[in-house]
Amino acid sequence: MKLISLTTDFGTRDWFVGTMKGVIAGIAPGTGVVDLTHEIPPGDIHAGAFSLLASYAFFPPGTIHVVVIDPGVGSERKPIAVKTARYVFVGPDNGVLSWALEKELVLGVRLLENRAVCLEHISNTFHGRDIFSPAAAHLSNGTAFESVGPAARTFQKLDCWAPIQRPGKVEGRIIYIDHFGNGITNIPNPQQQLKNGMECRVKGKRLWTVPYENYFQAVPVSAAVAVPGSSGYLEVAVNAGSAEKILGLKRGCSVVLQQATRKS
Amino acid sequence: MKLISLTTDFGTRDWFVGTMKGVIAGIAPGTGVVDLTHEIPPGDIHAGAFSLLASYAFFPPGTIHVVVIDPGVGSERKPIAVKTARYVFVGPDNGVLSWALEKELVLGVRLLENRAVCLEHISNTFHGRDIFSPAAAHLSNGTAFESVGPAARTFQKLDCWAPIQRPGKVEGRIIYIDHFGNGITNIPNPQQQLKNGMECRVKGKRLWTVPYENYFQAVPVSAAVAVPGSSGYLEVAVNAGSAEKILGLKRGCSVVLQQATRKS
Amino acid sequence: MKLISLTTDFGTRDWFVGTMKGVIAGIAPGTGVVDLTHEIPPGDIHAGAFSLLASYAFFPPGTIHVVVIDPGVGSERKPIAVKTARYVFVGPDNGVLSWALEKELVLGVRLLENRAVCLEHISNTFHGRDIFSPAAAHLSNGTAFESVGPAARTFQKLDCWAPIQRPGKVEGRIIYIDHFGNGITNIPNPQQQLKNGMECRVKGKRLWTVPYENYFQAVPVSAAVAVPGSSGYLEVAVNAGSAEKILGLKRGCSVVLQQATRKS
Repeated sequence: MKLISLTTDFGTRDWFVGTMKGVIAGIAPGTGVVDLTHEIPPGDIHAGAFSLLASYAFFPPGTIHVVVIDPGVGSERKPIAVKTARYVFVGPDNGVLSWALEKELVLGVRLLENRAVCLEHISNTFHGRDIFSPAAAHLSNGTAFESVGPAARTFQKLDCWAPIQRPGKVEGRIIYIDHFGNGITNIPNPQQQLKNGMECRVKGKRLWTVPYENYFQAVPVSAAVAVPGSSGYLEVAVNAGSAEKILGLKRGCSVVLQQATRKS
Repeated sequence: MKLISLTTDFGTRDWFVGTMKGVIAGIAPGTGVVDLTHEIPPGDIHAGAFSLLASYAFFPPGTIHVVVIDPGVGSERKPIAVKTARYVFVGPDNGVLSWALEKELVLGVRLLENRAVCLEHISNTFHGRDIFSPAAAHLSNGTAFESVGPAARTFQKLDCWAPIQRPGKVEGRIIYIDHFGNGITNIPNPQQQLKNGMECRVKGKRLWTVPYENYFQAVPVSAAVAVPGSSGYLEVAVNAGSAEKILGLKRGCSVVLQQATRKS
Repeated sequence: MKLISLTTDFGTRDWFVGTMKGVIAGIAPGTGVVDLTHEIPPGDIHAGAFSLLASYAFFPPGTIHVVVIDPGVGSERKPIAVKTARYVFVGPDNGVLSWALEKELVLGVRLLENRAVCLEHISNTFHGRDIFSPAAAHLSNGTAFESVGPAARTFQKLDCWAPIQRPGKVEGRIIYIDHFGNGITNIPNPQQQLKNGMECRVKGKRLWTVPYENYFQAVPVSAAVAVPGSSGYLEVAVNAGSAEKILGLKRGCSVVLQQATRKS
């Protein structure tokens, strides 16, 4: 079965997402649609980029990933489609696709300018319905990637967010806070635990020292812990609690992973 | 593929919507189900009616639109199905279907009284599960529209909400505030911009004068703007902000669209 | 069509649920997925157990019900699958499945230990993606139930929550508060109204006496009422209002159903 994933900041309170699915069902009736999330904070391109990065590769090859975090809708930014070795990505060219694309082998970039793959009337404020959904549905139906519009040389990239490797430590930061209040960092999961253990220095509402363990329950309830995260990046959490609330985590907070300090 | 759209005020916190889908899957396994929204404010028939109006026509012909905003569940109000030239609409006869039906060619109205298209046990409080979903699923399966119950002469209509055309201006009001805080009015999108520009007088927490432009970014960030809305009606917005919060918009606020005042 | 239902406490803000669906689509492309709810309060096993109990039987036979309320993820608790006469249930062995299983004829219990039905890399914090979803997808594809792992003797049961039958009255409590603010009790719906009527004594922010009626509108707007609930259990509600807010209901509040007191 063909598959389209949808990631937006439209929320689920209004009819926006349902309408996109109605459009897709009309053009490509046999295509399955999976919601990644529609609760990206309005216009938060970084949160959208990370959500896509953390999940896109768990979808079967051939999936068309549609991402509509589009604060510039109706202005100069271009709608694009990007074909990689395994997937097609569709969205505005504002960097929201770029963190996922960095991990993929990009085969081509196209501007979505062929009106035949859009709805007949294109509004100025809802390209998710009028351009991105119908284009994805036509691609799912077998429309050739090259026919959606002219080739583009490249796509916008978000600022790089790699952590800094220092002797004996890695300096990173919180880049996403999830529903449970866990802080996901930009530090890749360590390949293995150091002999004498590791710890994180986390700058929340004060500086916290947090042990690195393999799972939440290795520390007492309500205690902080750093664990290898399911998205491939180190997470700062509180066992059975919210690290966001208890440690005062915010996006951008400094996190340093290092050898555990030996207590005397 | 057959399609059913669902619009309710059930929220997504409980099992209500999932249960309706379980019922549909049991009766009509091949039918796709699309959520329009389940976050209509509890019992808000106007918000449900507008959500349906703004989106139903983007679904493929043959779609069965199920709307359960039903504060009178279990009392005298009747469950109905309405067949139009392109769709079938299913819901309580309390006006929630009427704004969409005004745009359609109505071919017939039926009371959902045939117990064969309902679940065996009908509760007093969850007709979404016990009547509306199974009836829609049976219709999707090919049950004749005429067999769901006796014909009715007509259906309840919500108060009319047309704006008032005055010489040189249109007087309307805010009828829906979306997730982004944009205020959607009952004033149809202008066919074209007037030579010297147009503006809106919007009565929020004070009287605002807002320029009419084609898209949000035509004004500076945090400035108010009126734009042609994607649902076909004029919207009052704030570029990269919430008009609801910044202008103090509420449903019912007066909006007047007129020739722009020339500044000296 | 094969069907999997999903119940989690993952929320819908992050990519977690969408990723589980991507995994299922990759393994079992023809299987439909229905969200029961993803808004169980984090780690609230009782709310998850009741949500499943209230809804699972409305799904067609053969449905695989996946429930991931899993505060112990990564620790000692076991992932299990339970086959009953009509369904398969998949989730952590922490009691979340038990209220539904009490109503079913259990045919077998298995530990999900066969790595062939899991993703290749199993994280410590996201078994919904790495174990439960792929196992359910493989079962949906026809993998024999016996092959998911070794047999287990039994499964964890949540504390029993039956109400107490006293002469002339039933003593129960609120066990779930829904989106509308209705308080669902553990008292089964009465088979019939007593001759002179029934009433509930409800201990909220004070002791309320609430008439028992067949539907909400039998009392004036904003008045409290007890009605037979759609999930099979007595509900305490307020007509067109929130019993949670107006009566001060919380989970655990005492509710006594008895013969109505005759007023002199």
